[in-house]
Amino acid sequence: MSKNRLEAFSDGVIAILITIMVLELGTPEETSLESLRPLIPTFLSYLLSFIYLGIYWNNHHHLFQAVKRVDGRALWANLHLLFWLSLFPFTTAWVGEHPFTPLPTAVYGLVFLMAAIAYTILTRALLSLHGPDSFLATALGRDFKGWLSLATYAAAIPLAFIAAWISSALYVLVALIWLVPDSRIEKRLPTE
Amino acid sequence: MSKNRLEAFSDGVIAILITIMVLELGTPEETSLESLRPLIPTFLSYLLSFIYLGIYWNNHHHLFQAVKRVDGRALWANLHLLFWLSLFPFTTAWVGEHPFTPLPTAVYGLVFLMAAIAYTILTRALLSLHGPDSFLATALGRDFKGWLSLATYAAAIPLAFIAAWISSALYVLVALIWLVPDSRIEKRLPTE
Amino acid sequence: MSKNRLEAFSDGVIAILITIMVLELGTPEETSLESLRPLIPTFLSYLLSFIYLGIYWNNHHHLFQAVKRVDGRALWANLHLLFWLSLFPFTTAWVGEHPFTPLPTAVYGLVFLMAAIAYTILTRALLSLHGPDSFLATALGRDFKGWLSLATYAAAIPLAFIAAWISSALYVLVALIWLVPDSRIEKRLPTE
Amino acid sequence: MSKNRLEAFSDGVIAILITIMVLELGTPEETSLESLRPLIPTFLSYLLSFIYLGIYWNNHHHLFQAVKRVDGRALWANLHLLFWLSLFPFTTAWVGEHPFTPLPTAVYGLVFLMAAIAYTILTRALLSLHGPDSFLATALGRDFKGWLSLATYAAAIPLAFIAAWISSALYVLVALIWLVPDSRIEKRLPTE
Repeated sequence: MSKNRLEAFSDGVIAILITIMVLELGTPEETSLESLRPLIPTFLSYLLSFIYLGIYWNNHHHLFQAVKRVDGRALWANLHLLFWLSLFPFTTAWVGEHPFTPLPTAVYGLVFLMAAIAYTILTRALLSLHGPDSFLATALGRDFKGWLSLATYAAAIPLAFIAAWISSALYVLVALIWLVPDSRIEKRLPTE
Repeated sequence: MSKNRLEAFSDGVIAILITIMVLELGTPEETSLESLRPLIPTFLSYLLSFIYLGIYWNNHHHLFQAVKRVDGRALWANLHLLFWLSLFPFTTAWVGEHPFTPLPTAVYGLVFLMAAIAYTILTRALLSLHGPDSFLATALGRDFKGWLSLATYAAAIPLAFIAAWISSALYVLVALIWLVPDSRIEKRLPTE
Repeated sequence: MSKNRLEAFSDGVIAILITIMVLELGTPEETSLESLRPLIPTFLSYLLSFIYLGIYWNNHHHLFQAVKRVDGRALWANLHLLFWLSLFPFTTAWVGEHPFTPLPTAVYGLVFLMAAIAYTILTRALLSLHGPDSFLATALGRDFKGWLSLATYAAAIPLAFIAAWISSALYVLVALIWLVPDSRIEKRLPTE
Repeated sequence: MSKNRLEAFSDGVIAILITIMVLELGTPEETSLESLRPLIPTFLSYLLSFIYLGIYWNNHHHLFQAVKRVDGRALWANLHLLFWLSLFPFTTAWVGEHPFTPLPTAVYGLVFLMAAIAYTILTRALLSLHGPDSFLATALGRDFKGWLSLATYAAAIPLAFIAAWISSALYVLVALIWLVPDSRIEKRLPTE
């Protein structure tokens, strides 16, 4: 089964999510500088979620460069990932309206965690399809960044009930770790 | 006529529908765990509709793997399917706000039924274009799951006025039947 | 310049428009059959606009089957068409909330007229690029349906101020004329 | 790394932005001609932003015709551009509701400026990947229009606090400069 429609569909969903989030930035009633101030937390949570979705799109792009084919299991693993990504606008808006409050910060991180787990499942589904000696398996390697992110989310979610700003800082930290694109695959790709 | 734009357009519409539904999950005013509780039915109806749209996308993907060409009739049969899918956000939101009430539950199922009929019409249009000896005809076979789903919807809709929770359970059941991708086509596809 | 991105971009915009319109169908507060009744005009105007956008997508699809290349002028002629199509959700919602009232009915038709003019301009731009002896020119022929639609809109718009239901009937009539896909191009395409 | 998904993703985001903006054109409560009047500034700011997004899509299309490959840096430079474009619906709605007021006019221009800077960064990233003797480098040349636009925005933003209508006129002027597609690349492309 060809991977083209899976890529196109995922691009479509991520493109819509990345633009729909901005609708939460309701225009202020007034035109003063003060009227923009309450939007700052929403804007910052939007910026962070935009970067996260950018990272997912980027890594998805890199991952499927190394993928040769997909099967029904991979299609559903991919839809499972898209489901958790589709909750980003909801959690982004909630944490933006109530910055540094325990529950919204924890739920924001929980959706990050579930998306990261879904991405890992997708990777496993593709690996089992391509075999341990495939280019994909070599390129992915030990996936250090992936496990580090999972561990950080798992720590940040309970921390949100003690010090929500530390959790928020941890989310930013994970984004910084991933901002560098996944050079494992890029390095090993043959030059076109 | 090539099938590429039909696939791309359908991917676009389904990708938008799957992400637009989540906009109904309005963020709660408060940050307590109780403030999330009223969202649970909306979240569950969103989850079910997401799975249904995932199934349609998956089956559409499988179907068009076996399709060689399309004509004007197939284009309109496909648009007819997309029309009924486009009503998913409306029915999902209504049933989510009023879970287990007769009319919303029946209308939710009616749109599922109409989409299933539209999918069947699309299949017929493509079959008549490819002929009874085509790979498509062999791969589709007797379409047992399709007829079972139609019968289940037809039973669930009137049942909603007697016991709406049974109808809801039937919708979940149909989803479970289809969650396994349509292996009829996948099995018969030549390995790439 | 290749036509692929123009096709993909137009597919994206039309797919979004066709699904965004349904957001106007706000869910009723109640669950009675009566609570659905006020939605009927909005639903019917949505259905008509869905068919119009389906016709545009269909004809666009057929048109570009015959197109070999595009230039900057064609890109802008296409964007001009998309601009008028992008106003469909606005006019559809307005006429749906105020069915058979003069101004909304006239504005609904005005946007149809402007989109039809934009489509004609796009056709001219492509014709001048391909020349009078091209396959495109032969396939398009005298464009009888196009001119008939323009004349019908031009009549329906002022009529809206006298008898809005006649205008509405004329809009339905134009849709029926076009529901048959543009067989001029399909017939002449070589079998793939 | 292939450029196809980057193009498809950018097309998706721009297609969504261009159609989402129109949602700000809320339907009037009444059906009189007067009820449309308050929408005129919003409509005009929508028209201008539509043209700007059309210009970006057009130039992006032209740019990537000359691009042979992309790397991780180009992917992020492109996402950075899409981020600023994604703020267009917000600034368009704000300036449309408060036309010719200082702060909304300045913020409207600031987002134009940031998008223009992001486009320049994207161009640089692609140039450094293709080398100074590439077709891309020759085709882009000295980028006179780009620098003129940056300078005009930089002047229009502070001017908004003195005479907002001059700033608005300057934004229209930049659009007019760019409405002609970027013939630098088109002229030099080999005929297909």
